[in-house]
Amino acid sequence: MEKSRNFGLDFEGLIDKSNAFYSESKIAFIYKKPTPIKIIKVDKNKIVDAVFEKKSTTDYNGIYNGYHIDFEAKSTVSEKFNLSSNIPQHQLDHLQNVTKSGGITFVLILFKSHNKIFLVPFENLSNVKKSYLGLEDCFDIGFEIEESLNPSIDYLKVVDLIIKEKYGK
Amino acid sequence: MEKSRNFGLDFEGLIDKSNAFYSESKIAFIYKKPTPIKIIKVDKNKIVDAVFEKKSTTDYNGIYNGYHIDFEAKSTVSEKFNLSSNIPQHQLDHLQNVTKSGGITFVLILFKSHNKIFLVPFENLSNVKKSYLGLEDCFDIGFEIEESLNPSIDYLKVVDLIIKEKYGK
Repeated sequence: MEKSRNFGLDFEGLIDKSNAFYSESKIAFIYKKPTPIKIIKVDKNKIVDAVFEKKSTTDYNGIYNGYHIDFEAKSTVSEKFNLSSNIPQHQLDHLQNVTKSGGITFVLILFKSHNKIFLVPFENLSNVKKSYLGLEDCFDIGFEIEESLNPSIDYLKVVDLIIKEKYGK
Repeated sequence: MEKSRNFGLDFEGLIDKSNAFYSESKIAFIYKKPTPIKIIKVDKNKIVDAVFEKKSTTDYNGIYNGYHIDFEAKSTVSEKFNLSSNIPQHQLDHLQNVTKSGGITFVLILFKSHNKIFLVPFENLSNVKKSYLGLEDCFDIGFEIEESLNPSIDYLKVVDLIIKEKYGK
């Protein structure tokens, strides 16, 4: 039996590699946004003084088959995913705006203790009344992303389902 | 007579302000991507050593009425706009990929000497055989963006024309 991949080792790295696979295969062009920083001093093309700025949007966006894709990826070591500490209000507002404007928006959640990844559509997430999501909640309002080889986190498979449900395509 | 605005003073700043106007008015959610840097050393939440990384995509992207928008903004003090020095190959490849995937892609070009801004759709730009674009070329293959008060660079007016032409909406 094949050993199951441990997603938790490098969740962001696996997403980046999956996005690289999508773009090399000309399937989708989705990128991680660089961390916003405020550069204070540059010396000979090297940044010697800078501070982190508050992120105002989400980590990933891009295009897939004409659809604007926008999402955030978060992992937790706990049994339950704390919504408010993981997704601050300004990110919720951003996801809400992009959703209303016709984008496909979601959060990828990795439960490290269970080695399970879920794609939770923002529309479902925004209806959640509780502050914590357990595995069962994610099965209810999201889609588990099954392990695959390449890309290792094939979240566009789920996006296809969402597009089909939403637009009948 | 009102004095005409000098776009050249702060082209990027005016685009950022126009985007802020669009997002505050819930018209579109288009943002400048942060400059990618590689952080080498952080000391007490301050970045004390970092280098600039090569930009792999374009400066701006986002969503407008369900359409994925992706563009680069460039200005020139010359009479003619040097295509290859202003838009490197990897950016052309990116714009090509996003265009094929159904995005609305373009370059905003400011001619500082004439205080004129053009939106040139990438599809037209990619057919250009010469290496320099003059004002006349831009009138031919692009759209002049007329001065307006708020937003000062109302490029979505031109995007509306492109959408209408492309999708009949």
